[in-house]
Amino acid sequence: MQQIKILGSGKYLPARIVTSAEIDRKIGVAEGWSEKKSGVKHRRFVENETASYMGKMAILDALEDAGLNCNDIDCIIGASGSMEQPIPCNAALIQEELGLEDSGIPCFDVNSTCLSFVVGLDMAAYLIEGGRYRNIVLVSSEISSIGLNWEQNESSALFGDGAAAFIIGKSKPEESSRIITSRLETYSKGAHLSEIRGGGSKYHPREHSEQTKGEFLFDMDGQAIFKMTSKLIEGFIHRLFETCNLRMKDMRMVIPHQASKVAMNLVRKRLGIDEGRFMTIIENHGNVIAASIPLALHEAIKQNRIQRGDTVMLLGTSAGLSIGGMIFEY
Amino acid sequence: MQQIKILGSGKYLPARIVTSAEIDRKIGVAEGWSEKKSGVKHRRFVENETASYMGKMAILDALEDAGLNCNDIDCIIGASGSMEQPIPCNAALIQEELGLEDSGIPCFDVNSTCLSFVVGLDMAAYLIEGGRYRNIVLVSSEISSIGLNWEQNESSALFGDGAAAFIIGKSKPEESSRIITSRLETYSKGAHLSEIRGGGSKYHPREHSEQTKGEFLFDMDGQAIFKMTSKLIEGFIHRLFETCNLRMKDMRMVIPHQASKVAMNLVRKRLGIDEGRFMTIIENHGNVIAASIPLALHEAIKQNRIQRGDTVMLLGTSAGLSIGGMIFEY
Repeated sequence: MQQIKILGSGKYLPARIVTSAEIDRKIGVAEGWSEKKSGVKHRRFVENETASYMGKMAILDALEDAGLNCNDIDCIIGASGSMEQPIPCNAALIQEELGLEDSGIPCFDVNSTCLSFVVGLDMAAYLIEGGRYRNIVLVSSEISSIGLNWEQNESSALFGDGAAAFIIGKSKPEESSRIITSRLETYSKGAHLSEIRGGGSKYHPREHSEQTKGEFLFDMDGQAIFKMTSKLIEGFIHRLFETCNLRMKDMRMVIPHQASKVAMNLVRKRLGIDEGRFMTIIENHGNVIAASIPLALHEAIKQNRIQRGDTVMLLGTSAGLSIGGMIFEY
Repeated sequence: MQQIKILGSGKYLPARIVTSAEIDRKIGVAEGWSEKKSGVKHRRFVENETASYMGKMAILDALEDAGLNCNDIDCIIGASGSMEQPIPCNAALIQEELGLEDSGIPCFDVNSTCLSFVVGLDMAAYLIEGGRYRNIVLVSSEISSIGLNWEQNESSALFGDGAAAFIIGKSKPEESSRIITSRLETYSKGAHLSEIRGGGSKYHPREHSEQTKGEFLFDMDGQAIFKMTSKLIEGFIHRLFETCNLRMKDMRMVIPHQASKVAMNLVRKRLGIDEGRFMTIIENHGNVIAASIPLALHEAIKQNRIQRGDTVMLLGTSAGLSIGGMIFEY
C-alpha cells in the first residue's frame, strides 16, 4: 500500500479520424464488418504527428490539469508498447520534445506492451513511496497504425493511435488516495499469440523484403489470446483480491485494457461487473496499445465517473502473455 | 537506502571470438588500428545464439551462484538496450526460453540503453524493499553486432555481444548489504549523439533500402558524447555523493560502463580513481551495451576484487544522453 495520488492526467489524439467504413474499404470487406467485429466506430491515425510529439501534448495537458509545470517534474517514465526509435528510449525523446533538453530530468522506459502503463504506475508508486522521486510523469504514446498487417482483418479493424499522460505524486497526510494492491502474471506459453517478430536482433530491418514483410508487422491470434485469458482471468482476480480483502462489488469503476469490444464484454460478464462500472472507450479510440488504460482512466475521471475516494481497478492483458491488475483509491 | 543484497550473478558469452585484427580487415584499416582506438583486443559475436538464449544461460549461471532455482524467482526484469523482438518484451521471451512458460512469473523490461541495468537495479531495490517482490532476476542480454554500421570505424571497433544476470533479494537482518544511493540524469540535448533512428514508428523497417540503410544502424558521435560527458560528470558525481556523505576514496571499486578505453581512462583520471579500483573488462568483452556494467560487476566479484562489506559504485552514460550512478554496499 502506497500513499500515492494521481495529481493530473491528459491526452492527445491525432487529428485524422479514421472511420470503420474507411477500414472496411481498405481491407476489402463488406461495409459494417470492421465495426461489428471490433466494436470500433472510429479511431485516430497519425499523419505527421510523432510519438514524442503526442507524448509531449499529453504531458502538457496533464500538467495543466495538475496545476503544475515542467519544473515540478523529477522523472519521466515512458510506458509505451511501441517505440519511436530503437535508441534512445521514448522518454528521452519526449524530454527533448518538451524543450527540457538541459534539465537533467531522469528518463527511462518501462515495457510490458499493452500493460506498460500499469507496470509503470506500479513501479512509480514504489519509487515515490520510497522517496526516490517526488512527481513522476508516466506517458504512453502509441503509433499502432504503422505496424498493422492489412492482410489481418481482425487487428486492422481494431487499433488506433494516441497518447495519455499522468502525473503521480505523494498523497498529503489528510488525503486517502493510495495504491491498494497490484499484480502482474506472465505466461510465455502465449508469447507468440501476439507479436512483431522482426525489427530487433531476431530479424534486422535489412531482412525486410516482399517475402518477409509479415515478420515486421503485428501478428495476432485474437481467438487464442481470448481462450487463454478466459482460462486465467478468474484465478488472477481471485489472487488480486486475496491480497487486499476487497471484492468486485467494492470497485466503483473497472478500467479495462480496450482489447476488443467482444472480448471486453465477455470478460465483464464473467467477472460479474455491470456495464455502468466498466469503462469503455474503444468505440471512438480503438485499441491504443499501452495508452488504452490511461486514456480510459483519464476519460472516466473527466466524465466524473470516478470521484476522489472511489476505489478503482485497472485490468488488462498484454503480449507476453501477461495479465495485470491494480486497485487504488482515487 | 534499501536493505538489498546481490544473491548471485552469472554471465554468458557467445562462442565466437572476434579479434581486433579481424575487425581491422573487415573495416579496411591498418592492422592494430581497432585495438589502439577502442582498447578492445577481442570480443564475442553471436552466430546462432539469440538474446533470449544468452539471457537464459546467464540466469542459470546466476541461480547456481546464488544457490537458488527458478522457483525462488518471483520477477524477471529485462534490462537491455537492444530487443529481440519489438513485441513481446525481452523478459517474456527469456521466461519462455527458461521453460517457465506456465509459471506466471511477472516479466517486463526497463530501458535506458546502456544504463538499463543500473536503472533496473535501482527500481528492483525499491520493489523488494517495499515488499512487492522477494527475489528479482535482472538480466541484460545484448546483440550489438547485428546493428553496427561497418562504415563507422569507431563503433565497429568497440562493440561486443553477451549477457549478464543478477539475482537481487532482501538482506538478512544481520547483513549490511544495501543500496546507499542512486542517481540518474538525462540531458536530451545529446539525444541524437548516439542513436538508431530506424526500426520504430519514426521509420518502419519497410523503409529500409540501400539509400536509407544507415538509419537502421547504430550511429554514434563518440567525440561529442565524450565532450558532453566531460562537462557533466564532475557535477553529477558531486550530486551523487551529496546524498550519502561519502567520497571517492570510500569506494572499494568503481564499476564503469565500458564505453571505450580512452574515454574510461580520461574519466577515471579526472575523478581521481586509481587504476586498481576501476574495473575494466573492455579488452576482452568490448562495449556490451547494458550488459557492460553487470558483466564488469560480475567479474569484479568473481575475481575477488569486491568482498562483502565493500562499498561499490556503478557509473555510466547511455544514449539519451543519460548519466547514471549507484553506490551500494556489497
